[in-house]
Amino acid sequence: MKLSMYQASAPRFTHALRNLSAMLDKAQAHAEGKKLDPAVLGGLRLIADMFPLARQVQIACDTAKGAVARLGGVEIPKHEDTEKTIPELKARIARTLDFIESVPAAKIDGSEEREVVLKMRAGEMKFTGLQYLMGHAIPNFYFHCTTAYNILRANGVELGKKDFIGTP
Amino acid sequence: MKLSMYQASAPRFTHALRNLSAMLDKAQAHAEGKKLDPAVLGGLRLIADMFPLARQVQIACDTAKGAVARLGGVEIPKHEDTEKTIPELKARIARTLDFIESVPAAKIDGSEEREVVLKMRAGEMKFTGLQYLMGHAIPNFYFHCTTAYNILRANGVELGKKDFIGTP
Repeated sequence: MKLSMYQASAPRFTHALRNLSAMLDKAQAHAEGKKLDPAVLGGLRLIADMFPLARQVQIACDTAKGAVARLGGVEIPKHEDTEKTIPELKARIARTLDFIESVPAAKIDGSEEREVVLKMRAGEMKFTGLQYLMGHAIPNFYFHCTTAYNILRANGVELGKKDFIGTP
Repeated sequence: MKLSMYQASAPRFTHALRNLSAMLDKAQAHAEGKKLDPAVLGGLRLIADMFPLARQVQIACDTAKGAVARLGGVEIPKHEDTEKTIPELKARIARTLDFIESVPAAKIDGSEEREVVLKMRAGEMKFTGLQYLMGHAIPNFYFHCTTAYNILRANGVELGKKDFIGTP
């Protein structure tokens, strides 16, 4: 099998999002086992001026969803950022998975040279599809998955690297 | 340009390692500005049972170096894990960059089906090259770069996502 834009994106995002969802289950079980209010989890942060767990999960989902949509040339579905609890965050991940799996591989493959324009606060950023996927979407996606892991880990949830990587 | 095993690995690792090196400069300047002992930085952790900053940088380097060597079919250079200070960690990154840039793209390209065997504590793990790069090396690499960022960020070093992503 040759490496392709599809192989480098959709199945990797869904794999890591499923691992993230399973980590959230462990976080919920941890809170219940310690008789903590599980509603606290979504608001945990590494430091006051970084985003909390809920936002990390939302951005991980948006990064994956946006990459698959932009590379596949389909509209990005809108998901409102309303989640606060672990079950709500898991539902957000599930909706993201459903969308990613709805985009056929053939639409994503061959998108190396497709122009991708991101509207950022600082202005527009233009990429080729390859540069966007490998240099922007993938590092950003893993950044937010890892930060979610680190927030939980730093708060005592028993996670290991295996939870993050899964079985590739 | 078609996405290839080389495009998905070496230039992405070198780009992110250069960003990591620049973040270490900011950490050193932060420590000096606050009149902290910069030697403290390498030992900072998010929680007692996670690896400290120095080890996160070493593992990021090893993951990149190992991926490029294994996919390129060349011997993995041995780098001893002796670094404690920021200048030493920057030198480790520089040696890793030198190695990665010494492996020709043509050796890495076409390695999708190459068998990769990792010796882990739990036993051997076998991958195809594609599965190893996209499902193991890349997520692991960004995991350790992000955790290094998070350790510094949680300790007050002024970093933003732009430092992590750079200009893709």
